[in-house]
Amino acid sequence: MSAEVFVHPKGLCESDRVGPGTRIWAFAHVQKGAVVGADCNIGQGAFVESGAVLGDRVTVKNGVHVWDGVRAEDGVFLGPACVLTNRRRPRSQQGRQGPQVPWDPILIREGATIGAGAVLVCPVTIGRYALVGAGAVVTRDVPDHGLVVGNPARPVGWACQCGQTLSPDLRCPDCGLAYEQKGTGLTEA
Amino acid sequence: MSAEVFVHPKGLCESDRVGPGTRIWAFAHVQKGAVVGADCNIGQGAFVESGAVLGDRVTVKNGVHVWDGVRAEDGVFLGPACVLTNRRRPRSQQGRQGPQVPWDPILIREGATIGAGAVLVCPVTIGRYALVGAGAVVTRDVPDHGLVVGNPARPVGWACQCGQTLSPDLRCPDCGLAYEQKGTGLTEA
Amino acid sequence: MSAEVFVHPKGLCESDRVGPGTRIWAFAHVQKGAVVGADCNIGQGAFVESGAVLGDRVTVKNGVHVWDGVRAEDGVFLGPACVLTNRRRPRSQQGRQGPQVPWDPILIREGATIGAGAVLVCPVTIGRYALVGAGAVVTRDVPDHGLVVGNPARPVGWACQCGQTLSPDLRCPDCGLAYEQKGTGLTEA
Repeated sequence: MSAEVFVHPKGLCESDRVGPGTRIWAFAHVQKGAVVGADCNIGQGAFVESGAVLGDRVTVKNGVHVWDGVRAEDGVFLGPACVLTNRRRPRSQQGRQGPQVPWDPILIREGATIGAGAVLVCPVTIGRYALVGAGAVVTRDVPDHGLVVGNPARPVGWACQCGQTLSPDLRCPDCGLAYEQKGTGLTEA
Repeated sequence: MSAEVFVHPKGLCESDRVGPGTRIWAFAHVQKGAVVGADCNIGQGAFVESGAVLGDRVTVKNGVHVWDGVRAEDGVFLGPACVLTNRRRPRSQQGRQGPQVPWDPILIREGATIGAGAVLVCPVTIGRYALVGAGAVVTRDVPDHGLVVGNPARPVGWACQCGQTLSPDLRCPDCGLAYEQKGTGLTEA
Repeated sequence: MSAEVFVHPKGLCESDRVGPGTRIWAFAHVQKGAVVGADCNIGQGAFVESGAVLGDRVTVKNGVHVWDGVRAEDGVFLGPACVLTNRRRPRSQQGRQGPQVPWDPILIREGATIGAGAVLVCPVTIGRYALVGAGAVVTRDVPDHGLVVGNPARPVGWACQCGQTLSPDLRCPDCGLAYEQKGTGLTEA
């Protein structure tokens, strides 16, 4: 672990793969074998399990548990108490006898936001700069810049890199960035 | 901090503005600069951030994170793991360079209840003695004594001061209190 | 407390009624008077309150708070950050003066799964091997092997003991087990 990592006196960091500038707050726990990039913020009570992978500048707000099987790329925002998973049909007896089955993975791509209290049902991929609304329950992949809300989560528009909703001509009313369709999602025009 | 504040040996209180009779439980954390009234109960793993303001007799159940930008008046009940926010369109890069934008505020008025696991999307005001049902995702203001449920939360009736649902003539079948319309909400008749 | 109970150095176990093989992780807290069976797993930040009762082989994932008034039978899986309750219409003033009213109970029967981030609104019973989907908000009893999702939670099928969804002829496409109707739920044929 880099000397430039801040670990709160009541926090717990067992990983030696945490990048410089990262802060780990009270009652948070980064397990041995977890990979955390530079300049991340791991909020109170958060958990990063052995096998989880976080890029640089990832924000893990308070109370978020990042499991083995989850990868979040650079600049991802995991909102307060959002819920991640790594087993689609969990039962308590699983993994108690016999071989461990592979996890159902979650991939959260660069810059995406998972809103407060949202739930991601694995396996699932959240696209670049997508925005999952607070309290949404995501059961399908979300495309790049997709904006989804509700239970189950449904697409309701497109999100700019800055977070604002795009106008119908795929332009940001705030920062002016323009987008165009690419595959199922958007890309900068 | 008053001598009459109880802080669990595994809890953490850094604020000197906590009222007498308040209890702070294990793995809970009240930051310096947070304001907490008298006779509050701050449950396990809860967080009260610098800048947050709680009145007297506020119940913060386990796992609730109260951010800068949130104010809860006297007698508010924040149910287990309910989720508060202070940024409507969060992105991880926000606030990392340049000036910090003001928070999107949450105001929870006297005596209101936020149900277990409910999510409040800021900015929003929850009226006096309103009752937000468990698991509701609130995207609009709730009037005084309003009762809302669902995702997104919709009004389904009115709540008495005691918690009971009012009958159609705006009377409480349990405690007998009578109400009348006032503005968008109710007031005691 | 049995010598064979593992308590993480940052965890807290005050109960002397915890069965052998049970593990209690960092920042988790089992209160005096809580009953926890053998071979349970109590995840980071979890809470088991005085009066709560857990059977054997119960999995309590990170961030789950198990209150007085809750009973979970053998083999139950409480998914990450799922939310339990013990008061249907909570107000902060309740229990502050006068006698304490009885809790609204939750019973989770053998082998059932509560999905990640799901909310159980008390009083409620979850049947044997029922499967509550991630993010569901349960307001009514769920029958044995019932599969429910959504807010409010609605039945959408039946779950096998192994977790798989049954085909229309009530047979498991994965493990082959066959079921038949019994009362409002299913039982093994």
